[in-house]
Amino acid sequence: MLGRVNHIAIAVPDLEAASTTYRDTLGARVSAPQALPEHGVTVVFVELANTKVELLEPLGEGSPIAAFLEKNPAGGMHHICYEVADIAEAAESLKAAGARVLGDGKPKIGAHRKPVLFLHPKDFFGTLVELEEV
Amino acid sequence: MLGRVNHIAIAVPDLEAASTTYRDTLGARVSAPQALPEHGVTVVFVELANTKVELLEPLGEGSPIAAFLEKNPAGGMHHICYEVADIAEAAESLKAAGARVLGDGKPKIGAHRKPVLFLHPKDFFGTLVELEEV
Repeated sequence: MLGRVNHIAIAVPDLEAASTTYRDTLGARVSAPQALPEHGVTVVFVELANTKVELLEPLGEGSPIAAFLEKNPAGGMHHICYEVADIAEAAESLKAAGARVLGDGKPKIGAHRKPVLFLHPKDFFGTLVELEEV
Repeated sequence: MLGRVNHIAIAVPDLEAASTTYRDTLGARVSAPQALPEHGVTVVFVELANTKVELLEPLGEGSPIAAFLEKNPAGGMHHICYEVADIAEAAESLKAAGARVLGDGKPKIGAHRKPVLFLHPKDFFGTLVELEEV
């Protein structure tokens, strides 16, 4: 089922500072910040040769990463996103295996305008797993 | 400086259970467990199309992931490893930029028998960064 690693998401309290560190200290190519108000984050893409890291900063009220940053004020690795060919099929097979899909259990349109779902970290050894249909 | 994402490391309390979940629930290809006593871990490679996830379980006394699992008993994302062309050059340039290389500041031979170094998570927004020369 799992295809490529689409991205690794890192929540940060200060996107401008993190973006500068990845660009200047680590010598990576970073995008301009993109505000995604409907997803409650501003994102900078760190473009690596084989995948990307997404630096996320909360945007607006009720950001989905606000609670994580309260627990981890310096920031930290937030989730891994894997690509799948058929997200509806993935959701059914995961639920049949006893894994919990967050929210109402149905895929949503994600930040890349593709169908995504998130799996409960308690079912995956403390790692929040996102699946994205590509 | 940063090349490919070599791997994303996930520390888990029960490697056999985690390996089974990645294989059977997520449908990924997983390796047999490999004990690396000189690095204090047993590892299972989850082989994705563009990179790999490494599931790590502590092995022996003083495992480098023991403290992390005490703080995160269910497990969690532990570090990201990026490839670099020249680790000695990377170490110098990072130290010149004020980043702290863990240990004595010099590259070591890592679990893949290649030179590696780890950077202090406080300098990278809560993320432990490994660099590996390839």
